[in-house]
Amino acid sequence: MIIALAGGVGGARLAQGLVQVLGPDKLGIVVNVGDDFEHLGLQISPDLDTVMYTLAGIHNAKLGWGRAHETWHFMETLEQLGGETWFRLGDRDLAVHVDRTRRIRAGETLSAITAGFCARLGIRHSVMPATDQRLRTRVLTDIGELDFQDYFVRRRCEPAVRGLRFEDAQSALPCAALGRLIAAERITGIVICPSNPWLSIAPIFAIGELSSLIDAHRVPVVAVSPIIAGKAVKGPASKIMHELVGGSDALSVVEYYGVRVDGWVIDAQDAALAGRVEAAGHRVRVTDTIMSSPERARQLAVDTLALFDELDAAE
Amino acid sequence: MIIALAGGVGGARLAQGLVQVLGPDKLGIVVNVGDDFEHLGLQISPDLDTVMYTLAGIHNAKLGWGRAHETWHFMETLEQLGGETWFRLGDRDLAVHVDRTRRIRAGETLSAITAGFCARLGIRHSVMPATDQRLRTRVLTDIGELDFQDYFVRRRCEPAVRGLRFEDAQSALPCAALGRLIAAERITGIVICPSNPWLSIAPIFAIGELSSLIDAHRVPVVAVSPIIAGKAVKGPASKIMHELVGGSDALSVVEYYGVRVDGWVIDAQDAALAGRVEAAGHRVRVTDTIMSSPERARQLAVDTLALFDELDAAE
Repeated sequence: MIIALAGGVGGARLAQGLVQVLGPDKLGIVVNVGDDFEHLGLQISPDLDTVMYTLAGIHNAKLGWGRAHETWHFMETLEQLGGETWFRLGDRDLAVHVDRTRRIRAGETLSAITAGFCARLGIRHSVMPATDQRLRTRVLTDIGELDFQDYFVRRRCEPAVRGLRFEDAQSALPCAALGRLIAAERITGIVICPSNPWLSIAPIFAIGELSSLIDAHRVPVVAVSPIIAGKAVKGPASKIMHELVGGSDALSVVEYYGVRVDGWVIDAQDAALAGRVEAAGHRVRVTDTIMSSPERARQLAVDTLALFDELDAAE
Repeated sequence: MIIALAGGVGGARLAQGLVQVLGPDKLGIVVNVGDDFEHLGLQISPDLDTVMYTLAGIHNAKLGWGRAHETWHFMETLEQLGGETWFRLGDRDLAVHVDRTRRIRAGETLSAITAGFCARLGIRHSVMPATDQRLRTRVLTDIGELDFQDYFVRRRCEPAVRGLRFEDAQSALPCAALGRLIAAERITGIVICPSNPWLSIAPIFAIGELSSLIDAHRVPVVAVSPIIAGKAVKGPASKIMHELVGGSDALSVVEYYGVRVDGWVIDAQDAALAGRVEAAGHRVRVTDTIMSSPERARQLAVDTLALFDELDAAE
């Protein structure tokens, strides 16, 4: 079984490609929960929802978050009432947050709730939160330590990042279903989706058991670069990379993941870097990594999975 | 200052009439909170919202609850997710519940939150919850004791009512603003709106301090009959009246309130009962009490307030 590690939109897109290639018994998607937070008394899991909505085909492709055909009457009214409106919640989207919050308070786990939502939305593949426990990404910036969404949404990633802290990650365990896959040694490969390495993937690695599994090199790891020609398709990965490691291209991400990653998929625009990635000891595949349609996401999934065969053959 | 005691739609309609006649310094509206409940993790105050929406002119006159120009995308999605949908919450309406819940958790009182909402919605008169403390109407029925909304909405008032219990009413205090009016002896008259006497008004009377004020006859009380020609304009008042006291017309309500009420406004359709209401020791005014428009609500308010003058003159 292949496990794909995903954050928000980039991860969701590749997941959309992978589910077209691998059946539900061959693929599970593990999603970052470091961005989760409580807002207006509601439990919000932005990355889980982006992955879930994308796989259900009801995502808002234009915004990159939330649902398609959304209305905003709740938000308009909240604004009129003087409520907090910096984090936008659509009317349909809200049902997920309200019902998730109710079920968490009733004692259900985030993974059980997510599985229930996915079943209702017709998603056949397992979408798992990296952990069912609390794990919060805190952003150390030039103006102090910030809650993730405060940094990401309210302040639009404007403060310079000096570091990240994954609160409660050390004590967090993989969610039950993921824990079972690990214990049964059913994971045969890990795909790191083209999500933000520092904000989306690092919080997953911060979970001890998961990190051990990868670091012990028991399973091959293939990553798709989220940086293309020095830029992220969406989001602040490039800005953060510059602030944290001073780098300006995909090589900085390759260096950041280091020996954790066996095979790299880099974009055709970065073909000139392939030699240096290989020299650093990685298998490399150069292809078009911009997933502008589900078909292109499918092709990227095929290319990514082919690297596992190459790694197998090379062993 | 006149205080109007109100439940849902009937109370809201008369309040809409009264605010056209009396300024914000001459009228306050005290609203039942016995129907309040927690649902989907949200604090819902149905009567307060009906009064607030009606006074703001944004109520749904057709439904008799909720907001005009409402959309239901939250509810549709909740249904798709398998959530609880027996209590309908519109997208705009939801903002009130979410923000109220957040503010209550942050330690604000229900009355402060309500005052804030009213100010935002352009309501100049004071709309006060009868109490800021917990007070819950429990309905004793032939199938057992039920939560109010379970009886009222989920079971559509079908079980036969054997009695009512107002949980925590004995220890509840009038909300701070109402308490101040009582303490300063600023209340010169009480209007009991044509709301359900058992379900909407009784929970207000169940608050000790309020009840004492009325029972001590320190202020004149005028009531508008919610029963017209043996029926309630809306809701189960007639059915409950029959189940609880066996009566079938406005006289049963007159008997139920007893000496608490000094003057009665009864509908022209019940003119034949006027003599018996007078014989029971009450002043009576017969008029058209069906508030099919704000103009007719205004006229009913004028007629109702005129009874205070008659009572004054008779003293």
